[in-house]
Amino acid sequence: MKTFGGVFLLMAATGGMVWAQEPEEGAPASTNILGAGYPRIGMDRRVVFRVRAPEAREVKLEGGAGLIPEPLALERQEDGVWSATTPPAVPGFHYYWFVVDGMRSNDPSSHCFFGYGRETSGIEVPEAGVDFYERKPESEQGELRVGSYRSLITGRWRRVYVYTPPGYEAQRERRYPVLYLLHGAGENERGWIEQGRAAVIMDNLIAAGEARPMLVVVDSGYASYATENRAVAAGEAGDERRRATEAFEEVMLQELIPWIEKRYRTLPDREHRAMAGLSMGSMQTLSVGLGNLDRFAWIGAMSYPPRQDFDVETAFGGVFRDAEGFNGKVRLLWLGAGTAETRFHDGAMVMHEALNGAGIRSEFYSSAGTDHEWQTWRRSLHDFAQRLFPEREPAGQ
Amino acid sequence: MKTFGGVFLLMAATGGMVWAQEPEEGAPASTNILGAGYPRIGMDRRVVFRVRAPEAREVKLEGGAGLIPEPLALERQEDGVWSATTPPAVPGFHYYWFVVDGMRSNDPSSHCFFGYGRETSGIEVPEAGVDFYERKPESEQGELRVGSYRSLITGRWRRVYVYTPPGYEAQRERRYPVLYLLHGAGENERGWIEQGRAAVIMDNLIAAGEARPMLVVVDSGYASYATENRAVAAGEAGDERRRATEAFEEVMLQELIPWIEKRYRTLPDREHRAMAGLSMGSMQTLSVGLGNLDRFAWIGAMSYPPRQDFDVETAFGGVFRDAEGFNGKVRLLWLGAGTAETRFHDGAMVMHEALNGAGIRSEFYSSAGTDHEWQTWRRSLHDFAQRLFPEREPAGQ
Repeated sequence: MKTFGGVFLLMAATGGMVWAQEPEEGAPASTNILGAGYPRIGMDRRVVFRVRAPEAREVKLEGGAGLIPEPLALERQEDGVWSATTPPAVPGFHYYWFVVDGMRSNDPSSHCFFGYGRETSGIEVPEAGVDFYERKPESEQGELRVGSYRSLITGRWRRVYVYTPPGYEAQRERRYPVLYLLHGAGENERGWIEQGRAAVIMDNLIAAGEARPMLVVVDSGYASYATENRAVAAGEAGDERRRATEAFEEVMLQELIPWIEKRYRTLPDREHRAMAGLSMGSMQTLSVGLGNLDRFAWIGAMSYPPRQDFDVETAFGGVFRDAEGFNGKVRLLWLGAGTAETRFHDGAMVMHEALNGAGIRSEFYSSAGTDHEWQTWRRSLHDFAQRLFPEREPAGQ
Repeated sequence: MKTFGGVFLLMAATGGMVWAQEPEEGAPASTNILGAGYPRIGMDRRVVFRVRAPEAREVKLEGGAGLIPEPLALERQEDGVWSATTPPAVPGFHYYWFVVDGMRSNDPSSHCFFGYGRETSGIEVPEAGVDFYERKPESEQGELRVGSYRSLITGRWRRVYVYTPPGYEAQRERRYPVLYLLHGAGENERGWIEQGRAAVIMDNLIAAGEARPMLVVVDSGYASYATENRAVAAGEAGDERRRATEAFEEVMLQELIPWIEKRYRTLPDREHRAMAGLSMGSMQTLSVGLGNLDRFAWIGAMSYPPRQDFDVETAFGGVFRDAEGFNGKVRLLWLGAGTAETRFHDGAMVMHEALNGAGIRSEFYSSAGTDHEWQTWRRSLHDFAQRLFPEREPAGQ
């Protein structure tokens, strides 16, 4: 079925990459596959989508709130191509998909990213004047490594990304602090690398002297016991959610961290170990991090899902009850959210204020104009990473 | 649009991973997303596909010839789910997709791979008793690194995967030979890593002492000049195809190889530099490799597209005319194909025999029962890599 002639015909169809486009006509997104002219982003950040579906009766565009506030109907043209233009989009990365006669379908013109529990189209909308997550020729590159460790707890191989900073290979005696980063619900270990661009952000920060050279470890936040007859997703209700959190915590503490510390030159103490995550990952971070302060001294919760019942006295096993003890131990408790994800932002602010009212030191970061999407988390990492592992001792010690 | 409640509902829907399945019921494919029960592979390698499309009028399954010899109609069930069972599939990796009312659509239950010039669903069908491409606890892992180099020729950053063997970090003075591996038409640099499992194959070979520790470099085979107003795909007709091959050759010789040799500890001479590729990549390999024998001494052409006009006297600039000179220089000229990709197999055999008739030493590898698909190329790498870079001098020198 795949023939020589067919292979070549195929490639002719993927040619036609647009280059040096007139700005007013817009430019293909960087997330497009090679040669795809659409989706195309205008100077005003309106995005034009096109998809061929000659037999369809209805085609809608759905996706991240910063791309389209609500589903957008595409219009059919004479040639069977459907198209739509969005309102000006919020800059950053957005997931999206088409709904063709009720069936969710990815855009053949874009690369896929793992979100919403499946492969999902994504689009990158540039932010004018902002390049902290763009690769720069002048920033020396660290290494992004992809490894697999055998998890006996889950009965699976788990893929993990490890960022090592520039100089890691050359400075053979030097050991490094480690940041463990967690994705959100429905995503996987690709999230911080592909959508979040964590390695590029770290390269740029380190090159500018704005972050200390560190390792960054990105694993999946999903785990289930090998002995149980189904995968339990952290985020499920009740008992299953508790079991998933337990399994994940065991994997991280008993398997992932030891594997990293055996394989890489780390500074293997709590003062040089940080953990941060977004949304579901922030819940895991607070649960695992605050529950194991002998292991972690730096904790970041990005877009922490709002809790009705947050009580500074009882939350997280009462860890906040002894403010002086907590402040002496925890070098950084960081909370942050985007202003457009109002409930998350309000919830984190309420928590931050309650903590400060109880004498707990915490930092609050506000990402202007961004929603429950990756631009919030790129900015969060950019802020959080700069605060980690200063050479000096903390004030008051 | 993505709310806290919604996030969690989503995750509940992705639970239900099947574990310890009864064999006769089949098992979910390893290429399924976390929690997806279908596609499911029976003991007889028949594959059951299911997809929900309540409003669809017609759903077909299409994909690799080893999965289905021709398109297969799915049948609608009462609940709006369509399903079909394939004939027993050829083992290995197969691309596939659904055609829903004429529109090609990926399977939401499988991971995507880059093939056919777009993100495409893939399924792994295990081969009984064969594990050379399966991760093994006893095989020490090398490192798979993901880097980016700035290509001035194309005006783009290019992503490249670099496999470094076990021991690369510890043996600081040791330098290594390098194998450059190329994908086929419509694929990209992910192909050899994700579909081809090149890093796992190398780990297993090196652990068993069956291949010499080496670096493996996997780049995209696509390139176009920055000054030209469109991407030219290798594989296009006539002048554009020639330009694409030129651009790719310039990128490889002037940018990629120098970047690799600056960044990694290589043995930077022709005796320690190999190049191999599949299908379109085999054409590039023969063109670039045979055209630059001062740079390459080991050459592999996997599933080389059949040529009507192969003439040993004139092919590749007449490089085969001086058999003795050629044999003295080229340490390995390797040809191979799957027996089920008849035209490719016949074509490579004809070429191999013509070469041998003219006194040119070449090796021929035949992959039993496999088609123009990745199982052929996994086996090809497994065979080819074992023949590379022996410590001894070649016979006759």
